[in-house]
Amino acid sequence: MSRLLAPGSHRAAGVADDAALVAALLRVEVAWSRALVVAGLADAAAAEAVERAAAGLRPDLAGLLVDTEAAANPVVPLVVLLRKAVGDGAPIHRGLTSQDVLDTALVLLARDALGRVGDDLAATAGRLAGLARTHRDTVMAGRTLTQHAVATTFGLKVAQRMAAVDDAADAVGEVRGALPVQYGGAAGTRALLVHLAPDADPDAVPSTFADALGLRPDLPWHTRRGVVTGTGDVLVTATDALGALANDVLLLGRPEIGEVSEGAAPGRGGSSTMPHKRNPVLAVLVRAAALQAPQLAAQLHLAAASGVDERPDGAWHAEWPAFARLLELTVTAASQARELVDGLEVDAAAMAARADASAEALLAESGGHGDVRDHLGEAGAVVDALVARHDAQAAARG
Amino acid sequence: MSRLLAPGSHRAAGVADDAALVAALLRVEVAWSRALVVAGLADAAAAEAVERAAAGLRPDLAGLLVDTEAAANPVVPLVVLLRKAVGDGAPIHRGLTSQDVLDTALVLLARDALGRVGDDLAATAGRLAGLARTHRDTVMAGRTLTQHAVATTFGLKVAQRMAAVDDAADAVGEVRGALPVQYGGAAGTRALLVHLAPDADPDAVPSTFADALGLRPDLPWHTRRGVVTGTGDVLVTATDALGALANDVLLLGRPEIGEVSEGAAPGRGGSSTMPHKRNPVLAVLVRAAALQAPQLAAQLHLAAASGVDERPDGAWHAEWPAFARLLELTVTAASQARELVDGLEVDAAAMAARADASAEALLAESGGHGDVRDHLGEAGAVVDALVARHDAQAAARG
Amino acid sequence: MSRLLAPGSHRAAGVADDAALVAALLRVEVAWSRALVVAGLADAAAAEAVERAAAGLRPDLAGLLVDTEAAANPVVPLVVLLRKAVGDGAPIHRGLTSQDVLDTALVLLARDALGRVGDDLAATAGRLAGLARTHRDTVMAGRTLTQHAVATTFGLKVAQRMAAVDDAADAVGEVRGALPVQYGGAAGTRALLVHLAPDADPDAVPSTFADALGLRPDLPWHTRRGVVTGTGDVLVTATDALGALANDVLLLGRPEIGEVSEGAAPGRGGSSTMPHKRNPVLAVLVRAAALQAPQLAAQLHLAAASGVDERPDGAWHAEWPAFARLLELTVTAASQARELVDGLEVDAAAMAARADASAEALLAESGGHGDVRDHLGEAGAVVDALVARHDAQAAARG
Amino acid sequence: MSRLLAPGSHRAAGVADDAALVAALLRVEVAWSRALVVAGLADAAAAEAVERAAAGLRPDLAGLLVDTEAAANPVVPLVVLLRKAVGDGAPIHRGLTSQDVLDTALVLLARDALGRVGDDLAATAGRLAGLARTHRDTVMAGRTLTQHAVATTFGLKVAQRMAAVDDAADAVGEVRGALPVQYGGAAGTRALLVHLAPDADPDAVPSTFADALGLRPDLPWHTRRGVVTGTGDVLVTATDALGALANDVLLLGRPEIGEVSEGAAPGRGGSSTMPHKRNPVLAVLVRAAALQAPQLAAQLHLAAASGVDERPDGAWHAEWPAFARLLELTVTAASQARELVDGLEVDAAAMAARADASAEALLAESGGHGDVRDHLGEAGAVVDALVARHDAQAAARG
Repeated sequence: MSRLLAPGSHRAAGVADDAALVAALLRVEVAWSRALVVAGLADAAAAEAVERAAAGLRPDLAGLLVDTEAAANPVVPLVVLLRKAVGDGAPIHRGLTSQDVLDTALVLLARDALGRVGDDLAATAGRLAGLARTHRDTVMAGRTLTQHAVATTFGLKVAQRMAAVDDAADAVGEVRGALPVQYGGAAGTRALLVHLAPDADPDAVPSTFADALGLRPDLPWHTRRGVVTGTGDVLVTATDALGALANDVLLLGRPEIGEVSEGAAPGRGGSSTMPHKRNPVLAVLVRAAALQAPQLAAQLHLAAASGVDERPDGAWHAEWPAFARLLELTVTAASQARELVDGLEVDAAAMAARADASAEALLAESGGHGDVRDHLGEAGAVVDALVARHDAQAAARG
Repeated sequence: MSRLLAPGSHRAAGVADDAALVAALLRVEVAWSRALVVAGLADAAAAEAVERAAAGLRPDLAGLLVDTEAAANPVVPLVVLLRKAVGDGAPIHRGLTSQDVLDTALVLLARDALGRVGDDLAATAGRLAGLARTHRDTVMAGRTLTQHAVATTFGLKVAQRMAAVDDAADAVGEVRGALPVQYGGAAGTRALLVHLAPDADPDAVPSTFADALGLRPDLPWHTRRGVVTGTGDVLVTATDALGALANDVLLLGRPEIGEVSEGAAPGRGGSSTMPHKRNPVLAVLVRAAALQAPQLAAQLHLAAASGVDERPDGAWHAEWPAFARLLELTVTAASQARELVDGLEVDAAAMAARADASAEALLAESGGHGDVRDHLGEAGAVVDALVARHDAQAAARG
Repeated sequence: MSRLLAPGSHRAAGVADDAALVAALLRVEVAWSRALVVAGLADAAAAEAVERAAAGLRPDLAGLLVDTEAAANPVVPLVVLLRKAVGDGAPIHRGLTSQDVLDTALVLLARDALGRVGDDLAATAGRLAGLARTHRDTVMAGRTLTQHAVATTFGLKVAQRMAAVDDAADAVGEVRGALPVQYGGAAGTRALLVHLAPDADPDAVPSTFADALGLRPDLPWHTRRGVVTGTGDVLVTATDALGALANDVLLLGRPEIGEVSEGAAPGRGGSSTMPHKRNPVLAVLVRAAALQAPQLAAQLHLAAASGVDERPDGAWHAEWPAFARLLELTVTAASQARELVDGLEVDAAAMAARADASAEALLAESGGHGDVRDHLGEAGAVVDALVARHDAQAAARG
Repeated sequence: MSRLLAPGSHRAAGVADDAALVAALLRVEVAWSRALVVAGLADAAAAEAVERAAAGLRPDLAGLLVDTEAAANPVVPLVVLLRKAVGDGAPIHRGLTSQDVLDTALVLLARDALGRVGDDLAATAGRLAGLARTHRDTVMAGRTLTQHAVATTFGLKVAQRMAAVDDAADAVGEVRGALPVQYGGAAGTRALLVHLAPDADPDAVPSTFADALGLRPDLPWHTRRGVVTGTGDVLVTATDALGALANDVLLLGRPEIGEVSEGAAPGRGGSSTMPHKRNPVLAVLVRAAALQAPQLAAQLHLAAASGVDERPDGAWHAEWPAFARLLELTVTAASQARELVDGLEVDAAAMAARADASAEALLAESGGHGDVRDHLGEAGAVVDALVARHDAQAAARG
């Protein structure tokens, strides 16, 4: 799929492209070779040779792609190349199955992506908290079902969006911190390793494997896809939050409303024919991402729901593109949203002027007279509470 | 939608039908009337009159349905009916907005549904744990990509499905325990109540409201939909787990395999033309549910991602049917799955016979000779670990 | 699912509810009894007795619902009730399978729903054509990516929405006109009827069956779901068109823009707390429907893609609720959209005033000077062409 | 997204990757330069210079990707590069908007992809027709809800799958034959061209543009997305058909059933650890594709349903990745399915043996005695009718 059709995808370079996947797969194989040392199936020098060979491997992607179909996954042909690079008898992949390697590699990609998403969400929430503080008492028209309702403040609007972003950041961090390694062997029984190394400490091997990758050791989870769907769920929760934020920016930045605007940047937002236009491109792209992520996350659940046997006949394979796309999409959108919020320009005077002009409507609930600023209820207190909530969450995230 | 098109939906009676929704909406209004007493806007007798009137209210559903469209939600016309029943000036709905009532009512429906789903998941996991213990060493063919791989045990297969169900049960319980009340007023500022009762304790009102409903008090969350999407995510995670379980039952129960069968029950599984047939109807229906839930959960995310303003112009409304359907679907499927597992019949001899017959394939990994029972690796230990995990989770659930 | 959560669903009464489904199922059985006469397996009097019994049958829905689960579909228990009502040996269902009856009954429901949707789409397009003619030269700001682009006309905006509605109406009509009866017997071979009536004319039976229902005779299509997915695709294409229309109404009806408004109707659009508000409820609900239909149509494809065997183990069952909901949703939305367009109020002066005020932006493409009315390009000609297109389509629809 | 996560995607090389998109975008600009000659805004030599420059343009993709975000689409920066390559004042892009170019380029990609998909579907249907003829009378067990129902034939099973593929092929061809060019200018009024060339023949320009690309001239359709959603709908209809076919192959190829098998090919279907295994990789991958396409097609409808204004603020952008992925996915799956069917091995003896062994069940409907071959009803006649239907469709496709 052309990256040009996912504007901003340069922000996700290295997240889930061919090179990143190959590197992750090789990292897994190298970690396993170290585990084989612990199992007594390799000596340290052989494992180091595997590591060196992996570091130097530059597989021909076109050929690898063709061979990937023949095996229905890229692990089989990559192992062939790695074996060829190290030499016969090298301690490679023994006791693993393709799914161990691919699942773990996808977990590695997810870890990096979740880290980047989490950082951008945290930074976005931080900036939104600043806006909430600054605009705690900036009156504006509240809008429900497109119509003016009662008055609110920009601080409250922003604080609510912030809280959603904070919750997503926490959820992303929680999932990231619990990511496990996958190791089960051909059908989840770890049989081959027991066969090859009957006297090895059964816990030492998986824990060495996990440690080498910085992941949590775990029982086999090949037939339970909660790691995959849980990752998808927090990512779409993040884009939900960012999407609603972008929608507000897009609406409030319309020329007829003019209460916020996406900050200008040289060369950004131009039109191919209209030199005057400043399109809110970051908000547009974040919104576009938010409209895409739910389908991708749903794909992961559909795959999980279609599981059968010790490895299903297509459901597992149906996860991969959606998973990779979702990682790229959310890394991109979180980065764009952060930049969007960093540059956001707020026209408090325009907000106030509109609220005053619409005072009759905004005050109708309470009788219709007076200053809209006197009918803000607990807006300020709710902002304070949400900002305090943010401060606590941010502190806990460290 | 005809309930006959959702076989088993009698199991979800009262979960999200018209009567259940009206009852929940009225419960919310009654709870609010009590909160108004705390706010000094009603006396206790008036609040009790509201409660009595609500208890006796039998709204004409056809008329209510028509008026629901005029308001774009059912709260407005229901409040009219309730006011009419109590009399002018009754302390009803003052300071609330429709969304407060509807969101909170949906939370109440979710609480009950999550409770039922959680119970059925826990019971299902318990029964699967029993099967895992019983069949810890029941050898069978492991299957990957439809083909025989290496040997495994039925205990391990079942223990993995159990662990997925356990995790879903825990997630369901966690979401259920944190369900909040929604109270924000017209645009989330709680303005009207402040206007009407400027001296009321701002915390006492929402906490009274929440206590009366047994929900967690919370800041307004009308523009943050994590409560809704989070509920959807755990429910689809549950059906993912149940779906994979059902898929295994369906496959292993095929006449050519015959390793498990859905228990017979009088009158169940019959065909309209073939008297001999015993269709695995519970497994079929659980699988069907698992194929539906992802789309419903995705709908909730799509709605969240389309949020804008203090209340969006359609995105909120697009949540409701999917949320209600998802509650009904998962209550039904969890109940069916529990019954399915309760009655599951396992033919250990058939499993063993097939494994022995397929020994050459199942042992190919390790050289191809011997007894498949000697190539089970850590299968037993993994079962033990998963069952211990279950025991801990079950104990924590109480 | 509570109908109150689908505001406007009274418009879809009888489309796919319990009563409608039971009536459709019985119609199919009655039609089949007539076909059995042609097959020589019943005499006319017996078939008439079946028809009378069906007409008088008032099944206990609660019991029917329970029995529906036992059979995994409602046909089996309904046939039992019908047989009981007519008496032993009545010519009922012989040679059919449940899927024949349920698929055909769903086709009958679809025919009525498509008819209603098609009528409302045609009427909507007709009214939009009127608006396009009236406002052929009503200048307004063109908007792209939320910002003012170049000038356009309201006539052109409306004519484009009209053309999408016209195309959807034609597609709906085309699908409706080709709806087939389903008849295949237990596994699609029509074996039982051949066994029972070896000398019957093989074409006469299905054609009698089809004629009695006003459907197209066809070869068995139980394992090909194009009838189902094709119906879904045209319905979601309809809501796509209506959704974009509603989105325009919602945007242009915002108080800051004020170029169109949803017509007022007594009692419609009120708020539970704000007496002044006029919410654009029809547009909100049409937009909400458009956000839901894609998931429902996707569900039908997912079911089709999961087909296997002569009848799949859950995929077929996963179709039904989505199909029924989609019928109800689109009947409701098409009716709401028609009423929305009928009452739409257009403020041409406001459009012109905004275009003039924004002339500098709107004319930037062509140098920035003069009257925006002089930079409308072929807007009028495109309106004329689209209206002529509409006239031709409307004439062909008759 | 790593192509290695979409095994078989080398089959879709050039369908929608960066190079293919850039080439298509440039083709559109070149065609437009020719149209500008007709409009009198360029001389033929200048247009040829554009064509030459486009042919030689090798844009730096990394830079183009960055600039694509700034414009929210790749057209703006590509036009800059093209202008730079030709020199100031070159007749490039004048009168177009980015959407004209991108929509038309995506149509060009779709045309090629639909062509390849259509060819592969036609070939697949042809091969299935051959199997249907060969196995017209090959008896096998019919299976419904996983259980043996009545006897059927492999010919009938295959003929039904064929008919679904045939219908998809026809639908693909129909959509492909009607693909239009997009030309509307900044807001669909074609204003700039009228401004620049007021005396140009208004029909000549778009028809020259369309002719140069081999597409159908059309009125602007930027705000009507039926071209996009209609393409998606036929593609997912194709994968529905192929998915069900693959599901049958996967099931019938299980070792316990063994009635068909995916043909062996050197190096295909191997396991990373089990030398004996022959995984049905093509069927697995086709099934995986069928589980993914519905979400992608739904994404296109969601985008269409979120349309607003003369160009929406994210909905349009949300189409692109799904559209490109769907083209790649279906080209890959159709090619894989063709190869799968070409190599399919059928074990008619195994089918017969199983049917005979299961005769009691298969004959229960008709009393339970005799030869299953005598209870095949109209199976043969239905095969004949479906094959005749295929022949007519194949002949019409030419």
